[in-house]
Amino acid sequence: MKGRNLRAAIHVSAVFATWLAALMLVPALADLYYGNPDWVVFAISSAVIAALAIIIAAATRGIRPAYSTRFAFLQVNLLWLTFAVAGAVPFVESSLQMSLADAFFESMSGITTTGSTVISGLDGLPPGLLLWRSILQWVGGLGVIALGLFILPYLRIGGTSVFRLESSDRYDRPFSRMSTFASSIIGIYLASTLLCAVLYAMTGMTGFDAVNHAMTTVSTGGYSTHDDSFAHFPSLATQWVAIVFMLIGATPFTALVVLMLRGRLDTFRDNQVVVMLAYALGLSALVAIYLDITHAEELALGIEHAVFNIVSLITTTGYANYDYLQWGPFAIAIVFMATFLGGCSGSTSGGVKTYRWIALYGIMRRALDRFIYPNAVASVRSGSDIVDEETLDIVLLFFTAFILLWSLLTVALTLTGTDFITAMSGILTALANVGPGLGPVIGPAGNFAPLPDMAKWILSFAMLLGRLEIFTVLVLLSPAFWRE
Amino acid sequence: MKGRNLRAAIHVSAVFATWLAALMLVPALADLYYGNPDWVVFAISSAVIAALAIIIAAATRGIRPAYSTRFAFLQVNLLWLTFAVAGAVPFVESSLQMSLADAFFESMSGITTTGSTVISGLDGLPPGLLLWRSILQWVGGLGVIALGLFILPYLRIGGTSVFRLESSDRYDRPFSRMSTFASSIIGIYLASTLLCAVLYAMTGMTGFDAVNHAMTTVSTGGYSTHDDSFAHFPSLATQWVAIVFMLIGATPFTALVVLMLRGRLDTFRDNQVVVMLAYALGLSALVAIYLDITHAEELALGIEHAVFNIVSLITTTGYANYDYLQWGPFAIAIVFMATFLGGCSGSTSGGVKTYRWIALYGIMRRALDRFIYPNAVASVRSGSDIVDEETLDIVLLFFTAFILLWSLLTVALTLTGTDFITAMSGILTALANVGPGLGPVIGPAGNFAPLPDMAKWILSFAMLLGRLEIFTVLVLLSPAFWRE
Repeated sequence: MKGRNLRAAIHVSAVFATWLAALMLVPALADLYYGNPDWVVFAISSAVIAALAIIIAAATRGIRPAYSTRFAFLQVNLLWLTFAVAGAVPFVESSLQMSLADAFFESMSGITTTGSTVISGLDGLPPGLLLWRSILQWVGGLGVIALGLFILPYLRIGGTSVFRLESSDRYDRPFSRMSTFASSIIGIYLASTLLCAVLYAMTGMTGFDAVNHAMTTVSTGGYSTHDDSFAHFPSLATQWVAIVFMLIGATPFTALVVLMLRGRLDTFRDNQVVVMLAYALGLSALVAIYLDITHAEELALGIEHAVFNIVSLITTTGYANYDYLQWGPFAIAIVFMATFLGGCSGSTSGGVKTYRWIALYGIMRRALDRFIYPNAVASVRSGSDIVDEETLDIVLLFFTAFILLWSLLTVALTLTGTDFITAMSGILTALANVGPGLGPVIGPAGNFAPLPDMAKWILSFAMLLGRLEIFTVLVLLSPAFWRE
Repeated sequence: MKGRNLRAAIHVSAVFATWLAALMLVPALADLYYGNPDWVVFAISSAVIAALAIIIAAATRGIRPAYSTRFAFLQVNLLWLTFAVAGAVPFVESSLQMSLADAFFESMSGITTTGSTVISGLDGLPPGLLLWRSILQWVGGLGVIALGLFILPYLRIGGTSVFRLESSDRYDRPFSRMSTFASSIIGIYLASTLLCAVLYAMTGMTGFDAVNHAMTTVSTGGYSTHDDSFAHFPSLATQWVAIVFMLIGATPFTALVVLMLRGRLDTFRDNQVVVMLAYALGLSALVAIYLDITHAEELALGIEHAVFNIVSLITTTGYANYDYLQWGPFAIAIVFMATFLGGCSGSTSGGVKTYRWIALYGIMRRALDRFIYPNAVASVRSGSDIVDEETLDIVLLFFTAFILLWSLLTVALTLTGTDFITAMSGILTALANVGPGLGPVIGPAGNFAPLPDMAKWILSFAMLLGRLEIFTVLVLLSPAFWRE
């Protein structure tokens, strides 16, 4: 690792930090509008961060990095870390006076679109803080789409390569230039958010709630402005708007771009989307039937509860409209497994992700055949596409690393005195960027406030690991990375 | 799959069943000696099974199978299933009058050396039944050594190939002929059991307890003749005998053979053994320190409790001398993770097994390096040996299959109304052939009796899956297997 790479990465991070500082003016204005004194906090935070960022950017200006995978790995880590740190400033300085661990956790949970919160009493929070949480998730969602489309594929980590899409006959070279493509993605992301906000408002949310929830729905983040999350909005129409837009947030944005700009629905032939919808439907149906058999609840309501919470977990949003842990062992097991699943690559979603499940299924089927016909040559397919062997290897490595880190970090978390179920499900929900865990503390009816500070640091690290698809962070721990 | 393969496999299984029938005369004699009327049950079971087996063997005689991997897969499954079914007969017919599900569970738990039990009130059980449980585990232990040394390597599933050992300079072609080698293994297994029994008796066990526990220690089975397992034997000397012989049971028997017959200790340079001892020591130390800090218990006793229970779990024996779930979250997390670990290949131990952890560690290290140097050629080593790429692939596949089956079977178990923690830890302990799970029902202080019948069938299936290293069973579910 060359020193100039580090300085160049710091430069880029500082430039991005000025943008985040600029975004802090939005909650400042909101607090000013609603007459909350916290507007000063946001204004000062914005000014200080901007000043600091500009100084650092100026000091590191003009350095050309050795463009390499190592530079990209370093850059991505530094960027997310910068956002998490800068995003935490208003939480520390605000009227809430959060501890460093709490503020960093809340900011990291925002920027990674996880949605776990350490704040109770959201309903009484100043509007600026609520808006800041939503903005962090919205920015984080856009960041992860960019990461999945433009960066991870070139690091040979998961994600959908734009070039692969362009050379595919299905997408038929939709855009001649990268910048057009990038601005189309941003346009669609913005348009989805606006549409979602309008629909939320039309179905009964206040304007403020509608804007906040639209930002945290499309980014599959899951921060709410109310302690009881979507149980606060009993309107069925509101709930279905959420379901549809959570699924949109978990759809590859390339597919959405082609749909919107070309009106071509056949982009949805993408096997990822079909499989995601299939397991959302399948698991929802299983839970709904289970609720119908074991609970006296009305069927329509049971279906709605099942679909909402399953889609929320699969898309890694993390909203809840019911304390589903009360539903009994089978529902708990399904909910736990759904936390692993995740949406599509190139979306705002986290978790193991659909294309990896498709690959794992193919790998297992082929492995069984090979035990019988050792010399058979067979490829693994996703829909009609052949998945190349390198991708298959990395999928197996990713899944294994996911499970091993889950185990190790769970052990680490129990050292802070956290009970086993909270630790195990907490690390899982952080690694998968979902939000709620299991048990009375961090389940859908609780929050992360009661955990000790050290637990919050560990969980923040797990969120970063999950968001950057694990290996992006892990390579930094490898001695080879730092060798000159 | 050819019909004559099936008939040939049935023939071999029937021949082995006559041996199991002969072994039933041992508990018959014991019950006769102790004056328990159950001797009739064992005598009749033995006669009926022997008669049936001889008829089937005669009817399927003279068929030469097409020697192929498919035949081997079928044979192994059928053999273990035959033993589980035949072994269950005395449980159904005895004074206990167990249900079919209970009897099959107990027999499968025995023959797979898992050690989970559905019987409470072991202290008052007739000696014949206690002895039969121990014999099942002892036979199962010998069976799995044979499986790991002679069969699995040729099916390209885990295990240590004898030929690989013979061609290795370390083992220096110890035996010119396979039959000499096989009888050496049996000799060492028998000698270890006898030595263990003598030492148990010398340190205070009754002769009956000594023989039973020796059989279930060396086979890393874990069945006890007392409800409170090794808490029944407070003598420190007894506990250390158990610790040493559990570790011996988890050591590759090829290494033991070379040690015993040639007096060459350098066979223990086998990296598997070193790593197993290292993690046994490491985890015990962690737990002992944790107990010292968080509990008022005397240090010496804390160390002994930590070492005993950790070694019991790592070797997949499953004895307990303390309800370690009372030790707090960190100890529970360590205990849970220890349930995965497992001993060495070519031993009686289950779990993921040491050589796979060595391989996984190497695979992960290499993967991180490759993200930085994509074109670097690097091999994964275990000690000074290079692990071939095919083995690495199968290790990743095994680990992934283990986790996926764990998830799916956990969901299935919750459908029987079993709570999530019992289901999750129950499937894990069954797949790893360990014995106790987590929680008040199936933890070290409980047993599997309260679970519904369907849960016991599912758990029995998980034990078989784990014992036969998963893929041996899974290939039978592949359509390719049954194609002509």
